[in-house]
Amino acid sequence: MDFSFEAISAEDYDRQRSSYEPLTDALRRLIDVGIHTEVDDATVQEALRHLEAAEDLLGRVQRSGRSTLRHADTGRPVAWANPAVGLRNAIAPPMIINHEPDGSCWSEFTLGPAYEGPPGWVHGGIGALVLDHILGEVASGGLTQPRFTGTITLRYHRGTHLGPVRAEAFVERSEGVKTFARGYLKDDEGVTVEADGVFITPAWARDAG
Amino acid sequence: MDFSFEAISAEDYDRQRSSYEPLTDALRRLIDVGIHTEVDDATVQEALRHLEAAEDLLGRVQRSGRSTLRHADTGRPVAWANPAVGLRNAIAPPMIINHEPDGSCWSEFTLGPAYEGPPGWVHGGIGALVLDHILGEVASGGLTQPRFTGTITLRYHRGTHLGPVRAEAFVERSEGVKTFARGYLKDDEGVTVEADGVFITPAWARDAG
Repeated sequence: MDFSFEAISAEDYDRQRSSYEPLTDALRRLIDVGIHTEVDDATVQEALRHLEAAEDLLGRVQRSGRSTLRHADTGRPVAWANPAVGLRNAIAPPMIINHEPDGSCWSEFTLGPAYEGPPGWVHGGIGALVLDHILGEVASGGLTQPRFTGTITLRYHRGTHLGPVRAEAFVERSEGVKTFARGYLKDDEGVTVEADGVFITPAWARDAG
Repeated sequence: MDFSFEAISAEDYDRQRSSYEPLTDALRRLIDVGIHTEVDDATVQEALRHLEAAEDLLGRVQRSGRSTLRHADTGRPVAWANPAVGLRNAIAPPMIINHEPDGSCWSEFTLGPAYEGPPGWVHGGIGALVLDHILGEVASGGLTQPRFTGTITLRYHRGTHLGPVRAEAFVERSEGVKTFARGYLKDDEGVTVEADGVFITPAWARDAG
C-alpha cells in the first residue's frame, strides 16, 4: 500500500477546484435527472451522443501515477476521488468535513434522490458509508495518520429523511494500536443512526508512532 | 411510509431497461473519466456544454408520483433508483442480486476507481453499503417483505482490492420480529469483510404476518 503523497500548492488546488468542480456538479445533476427521466428513445439517443462527446473530451488527458495529493498549506489529503468526500467524484454527496480544535469532526450535507432506499428515506447502506467515513476521519486525525476500520457497528434508530443531514464523530479513547470512535447521523428530527468503530494502526505504520 | 407498488409489465420493463440502461452506463463512465481528467479549462467548458444539453433533454419528461415499481412476473421490486442495485442510478455499481432456492443471495460485480478509499483499495464505507444492501435483500425475501436494518456490525479482515468482488448473504435465524442475517464481501483473494445484521419487521407490517 502506497501512502506517499504528492503536494499540491494552494494555488493549483484552487485552480483545479474551480475548473473541475462545476463538471462534477453537472454530473450529480445528471445522475438525478437520469434516474427519473421518461423521455422517448429518440431523445435518449440524442442525450447519449452528448454524454459520449463529453466523455471523449474529458478522456483526452487523464491523470497518471499518484492520485492522492496533499494540500501544501493544510497538510491534509485532498482526496478528490473519494466516494464520500471527493469534490471530483460525482458519487460523493460530497461531505465537507469540518475539524474542530478538540479533534471532533462534523459535516452538514444533502442526501438527495440518488441516495434513496425505501421510498422517501435514505438507503441504510448510505448511512453506513457516511458514518464509516467520518469515524475514519476523526480516528486518523483528518486522514493524516493511517488508520483502517477494524470493526464498525451501526444502530438504526429510525429511517433518515432524504434531504439535509448532519454527521458528527469524536474519539472516545485510544488503546495501543486501537482507536475507538463514535458518531451519529441526524436528520431534521434528530439522531437516526449511531455508530461505534474500532480503527487500527497498520503494522507498517506502528514503528513511526 | 408508502410501500404500495405499481406493477410494471415484463415488456415495459425490458423496453425501459434497453432504452435507459445505456444512459446510466454512459454516466458511470463519465464519473470515472471526470475524476481523473486533466484537460484544460476550455475543454472542460466544452464538455460542460454537452452535459448541460443532456441534462436539458433528459429533464423534459420526468417520472412523477411513485418511483417504486414491482415486476409483474417476478413480483420483486424493480428499484431502478437504488444506490446499490439500481440499473438507472449511476451511483450503483450496480449489484445484480441472485436469489437461490434456499433463500440465500449472492452478487458478483466490479468496484472500479469511483469506489476507491485508500489508494488501490475499496473505501470501507462502500463495503458497508453493499453488505447492508445484500443482508437487507436476504432478510426481506428479496425485498418482498418490509424489513429494516436494526443493527449491523462489519468486521474488516483486510483491505478489498478494487476490481471484481463477490457479496453473499444468508439468514441465520428468525425470532419474532427479528431476522438475523450474515454475509461476506470477497475479492480475488478471499473474504475481506464479514457482516452480521439484525433486521426488524416494522410495527405496521406485523399484523400481516
